[in-house]
Amino acid sequence: MSDLKNDRFLRALLRQPVDRTPVWMMRQAGRYLPEYRATRSQAGDFMSLCKNTELACEVTLQPLERYALDAAILFSDILTIPDAMGLGLYFAEGEGPKFRKPVRTEADIESLQVIDTASDLSYVTDAVSMIRRELNGHVPLIGFSGSPWTLATYMIEGQSSRDFARAKTMLYTQPELMHQLLDKLALSVIDYLNAQIRAGAQAVQIFDTWGGALSHAAYREFSLSYMEKIVKGLITHADGRDVPVILFTKGGGLWLEGMADTGCHALGLDWTMDIGAAKARVGHKVALQGNMDPAVLRANPATIEKEVQSILQSFGTGSGHIFNLGHGITPDIDPENAKVFIDAVHKFSAN
Amino acid sequence: MSDLKNDRFLRALLRQPVDRTPVWMMRQAGRYLPEYRATRSQAGDFMSLCKNTELACEVTLQPLERYALDAAILFSDILTIPDAMGLGLYFAEGEGPKFRKPVRTEADIESLQVIDTASDLSYVTDAVSMIRRELNGHVPLIGFSGSPWTLATYMIEGQSSRDFARAKTMLYTQPELMHQLLDKLALSVIDYLNAQIRAGAQAVQIFDTWGGALSHAAYREFSLSYMEKIVKGLITHADGRDVPVILFTKGGGLWLEGMADTGCHALGLDWTMDIGAAKARVGHKVALQGNMDPAVLRANPATIEKEVQSILQSFGTGSGHIFNLGHGITPDIDPENAKVFIDAVHKFSAN
Repeated sequence: MSDLKNDRFLRALLRQPVDRTPVWMMRQAGRYLPEYRATRSQAGDFMSLCKNTELACEVTLQPLERYALDAAILFSDILTIPDAMGLGLYFAEGEGPKFRKPVRTEADIESLQVIDTASDLSYVTDAVSMIRRELNGHVPLIGFSGSPWTLATYMIEGQSSRDFARAKTMLYTQPELMHQLLDKLALSVIDYLNAQIRAGAQAVQIFDTWGGALSHAAYREFSLSYMEKIVKGLITHADGRDVPVILFTKGGGLWLEGMADTGCHALGLDWTMDIGAAKARVGHKVALQGNMDPAVLRANPATIEKEVQSILQSFGTGSGHIFNLGHGITPDIDPENAKVFIDAVHKFSAN
Repeated sequence: MSDLKNDRFLRALLRQPVDRTPVWMMRQAGRYLPEYRATRSQAGDFMSLCKNTELACEVTLQPLERYALDAAILFSDILTIPDAMGLGLYFAEGEGPKFRKPVRTEADIESLQVIDTASDLSYVTDAVSMIRRELNGHVPLIGFSGSPWTLATYMIEGQSSRDFARAKTMLYTQPELMHQLLDKLALSVIDYLNAQIRAGAQAVQIFDTWGGALSHAAYREFSLSYMEKIVKGLITHADGRDVPVILFTKGGGLWLEGMADTGCHALGLDWTMDIGAAKARVGHKVALQGNMDPAVLRANPATIEKEVQSILQSFGTGSGHIFNLGHGITPDIDPENAKVFIDAVHKFSAN
């Protein structure tokens, strides 16, 4: 592996000094980019794009051609694990992800097997290896997975959901069954992320998209505890460097202390938190990633720059900040506005 | 007006001692009740039910026949104000509320008139008067309104929304126009709630359903400040009693201090907060209402009782707790489980 030319992102995750605040965007390889849409139409549907090593590599690298980003993130989906478990993931046009065989009964859960990434998800590790090679040390590569709770909600509901009626019914009426499912998922995520790290991922992020739908007590028992188990099961060192872990619970602003206590290196923040307040609460333990509302990218350049400055100012001095959006960039954003955002982070954070 | 036989709810809102914790449920007059569904089918569509004084009164009182509730809440919709402004509210079967004429342009907003409840929304005050008379002092009656920001999101999007793309675009690109809209809405809400109080409402709740979608800074500027304006504009005393005001921002757990500083009497909490932690932060200023996850009502009686006990225990001793769900009860709930919930609150909180 070639030397890393830009390690700003990895250094900030470990709260080491950097010359300027590193920046990347969740869903930076995505539909807002015309070149992404072109590659996607070549591949066919979304999962065919994920499973095509060359094309997955190509779209991962596309935003780096346009923007001064400090990290690449593997192009894939959070639901590859349940797909590998045999649930049959598909994307209906204009709708979210769906499963052909959702998990509903005790028998459904008992028959699920912890995945073996090497045999079940080699298309992901192949993509990681190729991307890492193509990056050639330009910036580090982030691997990722959905959190067990987030995966479980999609597996039980069969699709995205407004109030998670089925998943919460199972949680409250059959908590042991829910724990059995989450345990299989946590073991699968550990295997999956470690395989990504072995293939070349230099940091990993766990996306807990729906942890924020839980009560404070249920969050600890059914989401956070499994993320903690994952953090403790991950490879900590690769290529002579620490492999930092980022936890991102959307809507988790009330629970930062518990998240920071898992042993992870950084917390992803959505836009509802003041990042300075978050730093005061947990900044001595973890780095913070975030947290501009992606909706700001619909505004004019002056407003985008003002919001960037306001977040930098709120974080203040000292290390441990990775700039990002508070959630994924949406398909309707003008790529020029994403450039304004990224350039503003570097311009206003330079030491 | 007859004397109030059960003032537990009003006393708790003012943090005065009570014999046991008062309880009511958001959306307690609703689709989970077979008698509601029968009346609703008699009325035709949802808005016809809201606009029929006798039937709106009837469904308001239905849950009180079944359960030992400590308050009634006016049966109506949060979107009556924009409807009265001429936007044409309707409910498509199986979908949320929609507007025939959403607000999109500067001209749209400039032409909006602050409502005059007496002439534009007399069906609401008529219902309040009749309910109050029919209640005959059994329990107090709660009036309510949507918050300006929440009303604005529906008015701009034309319906409920996942990410509030249009509303946030206006907020970030035309903040002054957004303020103009919110100001008209705040004045309308003040007129509307005061008319409800004059007609007999003994407490009022402001539902800020979508405040939690904002960044911390935008929340203060575009939602909280208008709720504060409303609180300061309300009639404070009626029938020889204080008229308490409850603020409920769903997803507002990070912002309780700011909410408590508006001068309101109580905060509604969704289920993501630990109520004991909330009490430690703001319990010296305001009462707290909540906060069981409505999904718990899908569980068995033992689980429901356990969750009730856990919330009572977390709140601990002292006054200022009104038990409620963290959001509205959903149509799929078994009415027997609602009874278990309400009875459990009284059983486990009796002094």
